[in-house]
Amino acid sequence: MSARVDRLAARLPEIGADLLLVTSLVNVRYLTGYTGSNGLVLIGREGVDRRTFVTDFRYVEQSAAEVDDAFDRTIAVRELIDTVPELVGDRPVTLAFEDAHMSVRTHEHLRQLLAPQVTLVSGGDQVEALRVVKEPDEIRAIAEATKLADAALRRIMEQGLAGRTEIEVATALERQMIDLGADGPSFPSIVAAGPAGALPHAHPRDVTIGPGELVVIDWGAELDGYCSDCTRTLATGELDDETMETYDLVHRAQLAGLEALHDGVSGRDADAAARGVIDDAGHAEHFGHGLGHGVGLEIHEAPRLSKRSDSVLAAGNVVTVEPGVYLPGRFGVRIEDLVVVTESGCNILTGVPKELVTVG
Amino acid sequence: MSARVDRLAARLPEIGADLLLVTSLVNVRYLTGYTGSNGLVLIGREGVDRRTFVTDFRYVEQSAAEVDDAFDRTIAVRELIDTVPELVGDRPVTLAFEDAHMSVRTHEHLRQLLAPQVTLVSGGDQVEALRVVKEPDEIRAIAEATKLADAALRRIMEQGLAGRTEIEVATALERQMIDLGADGPSFPSIVAAGPAGALPHAHPRDVTIGPGELVVIDWGAELDGYCSDCTRTLATGELDDETMETYDLVHRAQLAGLEALHDGVSGRDADAAARGVIDDAGHAEHFGHGLGHGVGLEIHEAPRLSKRSDSVLAAGNVVTVEPGVYLPGRFGVRIEDLVVVTESGCNILTGVPKELVTVG
Repeated sequence: MSARVDRLAARLPEIGADLLLVTSLVNVRYLTGYTGSNGLVLIGREGVDRRTFVTDFRYVEQSAAEVDDAFDRTIAVRELIDTVPELVGDRPVTLAFEDAHMSVRTHEHLRQLLAPQVTLVSGGDQVEALRVVKEPDEIRAIAEATKLADAALRRIMEQGLAGRTEIEVATALERQMIDLGADGPSFPSIVAAGPAGALPHAHPRDVTIGPGELVVIDWGAELDGYCSDCTRTLATGELDDETMETYDLVHRAQLAGLEALHDGVSGRDADAAARGVIDDAGHAEHFGHGLGHGVGLEIHEAPRLSKRSDSVLAAGNVVTVEPGVYLPGRFGVRIEDLVVVTESGCNILTGVPKELVTVG
Repeated sequence: MSARVDRLAARLPEIGADLLLVTSLVNVRYLTGYTGSNGLVLIGREGVDRRTFVTDFRYVEQSAAEVDDAFDRTIAVRELIDTVPELVGDRPVTLAFEDAHMSVRTHEHLRQLLAPQVTLVSGGDQVEALRVVKEPDEIRAIAEATKLADAALRRIMEQGLAGRTEIEVATALERQMIDLGADGPSFPSIVAAGPAGALPHAHPRDVTIGPGELVVIDWGAELDGYCSDCTRTLATGELDDETMETYDLVHRAQLAGLEALHDGVSGRDADAAARGVIDDAGHAEHFGHGLGHGVGLEIHEAPRLSKRSDSVLAAGNVVTVEPGVYLPGRFGVRIEDLVVVTESGCNILTGVPKELVTVG
């Protein structure tokens, strides 16, 4: 993790900062290894000797065990933010903060506590800019979480879907993941049968899944802090031609999205590759969300693959590719893989089949 | 919920605001009933006709089902915050925002979008000020969650602790809660045996619980959005005299804390009542946290019961009373009830016994 801090320190001159205050807990974890619920980090730019981690008394032992040796550790007796002015001192330095994470109230409080010689500036997304390109160990962790989520779905498929309620299936799926070693689901699972499948973010209902329906299942595992994310749309019996065609359309769009991925492609172009297939089939208004998003320590992170994305993909990004077609009141289809972007394409982490599977 | 919005609208003149923008999702839920992951609310003071809920296309159906009829519903096509300037318009009004929840970045973005005639001011904790006094239905929900958590612990006690790992017990406890109807645990359960009990926020370990140990179990259920919170310290066999005395000390401190509660008592005085018992026994430095905190839609909310609290308790507050004594490297004892503050005292929601129980 020390290398991550070095890379971060090297970025700070670009934003004119001598010091960066990291208050996002996910970013603190990424830099230090700390998994508790109260911590912050202060880091100096190259040449400024400051790598301090601050927590409270509850985490003395946990932080000693977890936090990388590159950091001094300070135990705050009051609010963590109140220790920052002393750490920064009263020399004329520029202190950057994470403006997407710090509240207006905390910012005003900090400004009042800091010496007037200290300039406080918005720091942007410095740690996120590192997190977006995954290291080999991170990709391994995400791949492990994905495998585990795959195995859980396979067991659920063996048990069948028709005759069980959506809530029963969702609960069973989450338990399987925990039995298989997950720390938990990476987000609340979606199990949405028939018309409910047309709601991209449906909550599982206490409603029995019928025969001859499509069931959208969107789930993921969390393992060692890293998330997986996958969607499959399964059939519980024979489907009419239009439903089959819609499944095939989304499948083709998903393959087109995968095909478009490589180092250097824009999030917009990747989205357009899959969206074009759906638009051409006359379903433009039935695909109302973006093609995908980054996955890592958070289930939704940079980069974004969508119509309005400003992202450019890079080798080492881990992203979802998840087009869908949603026909209100009737049914929905979404097919989602989790992939690693490479120089020339992508590696698919997800292992469950994408062809239409009927599970009864 | 309409009555909540009326009470909120009546508070706004006190802070000089014509409109309040509510962006905390918990506060949005409290006001509207909406349980999704993207929503905001704009409310006018008494006399200003504005009660609008904003979400995105994913939540069209869910918000139609959940959001109180007192609100207009708007579906944003871009970021939710980008709809606010249009809703506010260009008359000279004062718009308050939740400064504890809005990030510096969002605030700057919003300021740029708003008409120059609109004054943007920090609104403080307006919704939290309402949430702190629970309504009868809320108390019922918290009591139900508490009952369910109690029942889960009883099953765990029947199964015994010695010979199982901390992780096994924690997982079993969380499953029992789900089996009994909980939406999930209200926070990650603590199961900490022997010396681990001396860490107030220990993570369950893959370590087998031995005989003759104290085991600190801190757990809670979430039900319909509301949390419960309880701690019991159980024995797995005969204990030495000092351990028994420490248990008794914490038990007496906990009773003293309960005794001190009533409408009008300060959070400091309540804390002092329990802390005095522990201080008098020479364990002042072994009780390093506050006596308790409010519980409701969040597991930690106002009011605080601690040395530095500025809270004054009121009838209808739901708070924990949880003194502890932690002897580093040896063992810890914490006993926690969840209670409703009343005019003259408190009603204890927790139903599991507080006398030392040996479960084997």
